[in-house]
Amino acid sequence: MGLPEIKKELAASDNFLVTCHLNPDGDALASLLGMCSLLKAMGKRAVAISPDPVPRRYLFIPGADEVIPFRDSDGQGPFDAVVFLDVGAQDRITKVSEFITDKMKIINIDHHPSNDGFGDAAWVDGSYSATAEMLHELFRSLKIVPDADTALALYVGIITDTGRFRFSNTSSRCLATAAALVELGADPSLAAEKVFYTTPAIVISTLRKFLSRVEQHEEGKIVYSYLNLDELEIDTEGFIDNISGIHDVVISILMQQVSEDKYKFSLRSNDDEVDVSAIASKYNGGGHHKAAGCRIKGTFDDVKAEILDICTKALYNQE
Amino acid sequence: MGLPEIKKELAASDNFLVTCHLNPDGDALASLLGMCSLLKAMGKRAVAISPDPVPRRYLFIPGADEVIPFRDSDGQGPFDAVVFLDVGAQDRITKVSEFITDKMKIINIDHHPSNDGFGDAAWVDGSYSATAEMLHELFRSLKIVPDADTALALYVGIITDTGRFRFSNTSSRCLATAAALVELGADPSLAAEKVFYTTPAIVISTLRKFLSRVEQHEEGKIVYSYLNLDELEIDTEGFIDNISGIHDVVISILMQQVSEDKYKFSLRSNDDEVDVSAIASKYNGGGHHKAAGCRIKGTFDDVKAEILDICTKALYNQE
Repeated sequence: MGLPEIKKELAASDNFLVTCHLNPDGDALASLLGMCSLLKAMGKRAVAISPDPVPRRYLFIPGADEVIPFRDSDGQGPFDAVVFLDVGAQDRITKVSEFITDKMKIINIDHHPSNDGFGDAAWVDGSYSATAEMLHELFRSLKIVPDADTALALYVGIITDTGRFRFSNTSSRCLATAAALVELGADPSLAAEKVFYTTPAIVISTLRKFLSRVEQHEEGKIVYSYLNLDELEIDTEGFIDNISGIHDVVISILMQQVSEDKYKFSLRSNDDEVDVSAIASKYNGGGHHKAAGCRIKGTFDDVKAEILDICTKALYNQE
Repeated sequence: MGLPEIKKELAASDNFLVTCHLNPDGDALASLLGMCSLLKAMGKRAVAISPDPVPRRYLFIPGADEVIPFRDSDGQGPFDAVVFLDVGAQDRITKVSEFITDKMKIINIDHHPSNDGFGDAAWVDGSYSATAEMLHELFRSLKIVPDADTALALYVGIITDTGRFRFSNTSSRCLATAAALVELGADPSLAAEKVFYTTPAIVISTLRKFLSRVEQHEEGKIVYSYLNLDELEIDTEGFIDNISGIHDVVISILMQQVSEDKYKFSLRSNDDEVDVSAIASKYNGGGHHKAAGCRIKGTFDDVKAEILDICTKALYNQE
């Protein structure tokens, strides 16, 4: 199983559903756009349906507004085949599966090591920084040159999943791919500004509150802060970076209320020995060794105590 | 004048002083370390003397602690030649010039377009993202392979001057050079964490103060905040990013008191039409189109009014 099987299955069908995981991030979106562009260049029909709408910060990518949120996808089927992109585990798809019939071929391309290789053809390779990087490889292997818009999308996928060349998945190959995408017309400065530095003014006051609530635990090795339900409507990606970089911090936690009894967690690890994706996966969340997320139900106090406890155990390798 | 002349002059002398601009940043330091490593590989003596000590955040680079601050440089001379690295203008050298005699050859390698090409041999090329990127080119041209420590230093130079592949100087070539340096052993994750995400805990409380003082001017197109003298001792690089990314902001200003009657400014522009290095250069500062800095003397109120006035004029192209 791998790239050759993927190419065979892509050639064999004509009418593709292309989809990704819940709450698409930059890499999921990049992969949708890249795959649709590739399939269209191959003369196929391709429809990108995302379980959830595309976050506003990614709408600058040409074509991002053509990704159909599931809630607006009535009448799009039937399809011959489905391409799952960046879907670390099959249960992260949910709603879109309504389109999938027994007769459809299932194609699975992903860089999450947790992916079990489901489907009729699977190419899963955790050595890639992003699924977008795999798509660049697929383009190259098929001798199809991505246009500038597709190059931009794939570049966004790479910078999203590497934290703009910050995380340990940043390889020489991933930087060389980024260089190739810029050569093809991706604007790295535009991508960085849009993905990482565009903030409504209200974010500043919320960031101030977030910083005023920082708690240090375990002699500063764990830092924690939280956001309330009414502070949810803004984009708080990046908040956690302000605390995860504090000297001596190993695990950082952002707890954010998403409904009456539900809390969303962003977790970061600064230590190769501490895998926050293992913590997240206990709650059906996902992510990477050093950056992961999950949701936990319960009261504020219970959920906070639970996450601090599990993080403390992870810190001392007592899982 | 260019790379061939540089190679000729490097071959012609044996005993080099290698220096950089005031307040060395990551690129200046990377260039010092890269040039010393190169000259030693060529069998020469090379001594790196910096006008000011190396900032703490860069001390993780092997060899950074061997750069001699000018204040400790007694007895290092005499030298046959001096290599100026990343020195945008000759007047940014000051103290180290005490070592320079009329007989010494002067070599000038720099990527600042403001550099007038002073010296016996000059290689000035504003198309490079960083002087470190030029040094990588010099290594390649001399067929000398940088060791892993030197590769790390050069990588740090590139991510410092591109804001980790954020600014508009991020080219395909610069990303390809970064890929080559990682291939040679530079750890991109280590570099990013050390340069951009290592913060003493006290920074958080200072950042809170900084955020509480944010002012919006010109309908939010200019944002301003300040730090007091007693808040100077911490590393505030990156603070300005929190406000420069606010929607609609064109120019962002961080004003930081450095002595009784002197203020340091960090300026950022989000608009290709607004060049903050032009503002900084009026006060003998320097930098790039979208990120620059300078110092202004005066009282708090006068200096603040002056910078807001000049930035407002720049905003409306009324210079």
